[in-house]
Amino acid sequence: MAKQDRAIRTRRAILEAAAIVFEKQGFQAATITDILKMAGVTKGALYFHFQSKEALAHGVLNEQGSGPSLPPQPVKLQELIDSGSVLAHRLRTDHLVRASIRLTLDQQATGLDRSGPFRHWSEVNVEVLTLAQQRGELMPNVVISDTAELYVGAFAGLQMMSQTLSDYQDLSHRHSVLQRHVMSSIAVPSVLAALDFSEDRGARLTAELETVADAECAAAAV
Amino acid sequence: MAKQDRAIRTRRAILEAAAIVFEKQGFQAATITDILKMAGVTKGALYFHFQSKEALAHGVLNEQGSGPSLPPQPVKLQELIDSGSVLAHRLRTDHLVRASIRLTLDQQATGLDRSGPFRHWSEVNVEVLTLAQQRGELMPNVVISDTAELYVGAFAGLQMMSQTLSDYQDLSHRHSVLQRHVMSSIAVPSVLAALDFSEDRGARLTAELETVADAECAAAAV
Repeated sequence: MAKQDRAIRTRRAILEAAAIVFEKQGFQAATITDILKMAGVTKGALYFHFQSKEALAHGVLNEQGSGPSLPPQPVKLQELIDSGSVLAHRLRTDHLVRASIRLTLDQQATGLDRSGPFRHWSEVNVEVLTLAQQRGELMPNVVISDTAELYVGAFAGLQMMSQTLSDYQDLSHRHSVLQRHVMSSIAVPSVLAALDFSEDRGARLTAELETVADAECAAAAV
Repeated sequence: MAKQDRAIRTRRAILEAAAIVFEKQGFQAATITDILKMAGVTKGALYFHFQSKEALAHGVLNEQGSGPSLPPQPVKLQELIDSGSVLAHRLRTDHLVRASIRLTLDQQATGLDRSGPFRHWSEVNVEVLTLAQQRGELMPNVVISDTAELYVGAFAGLQMMSQTLSDYQDLSHRHSVLQRHVMSSIAVPSVLAALDFSEDRGARLTAELETVADAECAAAAV
């Protein structure tokens, strides 16, 4: 294995271990020693990648924005639905993403700046909504920053409610309900009629992206 | 002071102490001893009112639904806005309510059933939406349980985002944005036009209720 590959794998192993420890104990109670034990790497290796518990936490926080790029859609607002659908799907299937979102919402983590993910997703949404507006997809009077941030806050709460009531099983449904309500209030009628709100869209898009990634790997290996 | 009054005050003092300890340490790390110390009551008094840490937690969880009844409105959907506005206002001003909502969203509280408040608020919303539907305030195709639960989950997340980004200072704005979006997707146009989304509505309603309560007290004392 090339040196760089090994470093990437070690970094990943450390992040996965940190995610498990933060998820189980919360940020405040977790220690570097617990994370070292879970990761099975040397202290030197850990400190090479992350200088502190805060740095580890920021590594985990960044994971929720690290997903693959989604395919562009003829209707821009569809991309807003798609990124939420895929995040809802990843929350159910990827424990690093789940730990990342739990850490964002860890109220006891008083020493940790958890505003990053809220700002990141708001900016992503502002970008898509601005393009949608330029293409005439939005009703007049939509305040882009308000809608962008509403999506972020509402999603955060819906996934918490879903976790509490159904261990994430109903999250795709709750996300679809959010999208139907917000889109009917911001999209012009012709665009609204073209949107796909299906609850299995996140799973379908993720499967498609994995097929593409596998094909690229196979091509690169030839 | 009558015996009953004293019991009510002691119970309140214990709940306030529990709220402070849960908010600071989280449910998992908090102990009855910490709560006893903070409340300044005897062990006997505490156990008379609450048999366990879980019972204390449920006492705190119930506080968020304990607010005064709001005045009925000619448009039923206004009552849905009003209860959210008042809760947003209480979150900023009443630390017991704040602790209650934080405890509902305390992900580390694994031994505690935190589903109660999610179900309570969903039921309250179903009731108002059903009345609104009977009066012809809702568009056809509104699925009452979906909208009712969307409000609960979205509010939970918006208050977390508001806490993280502005220590609750922007919560009334975020709540008003949520209401504008959801109401435009469920209310018939004539009702939508009649709704008051002002951001200071929660503070105004709370002040009115306090004036009424003060007047009743004064009348009772005569």
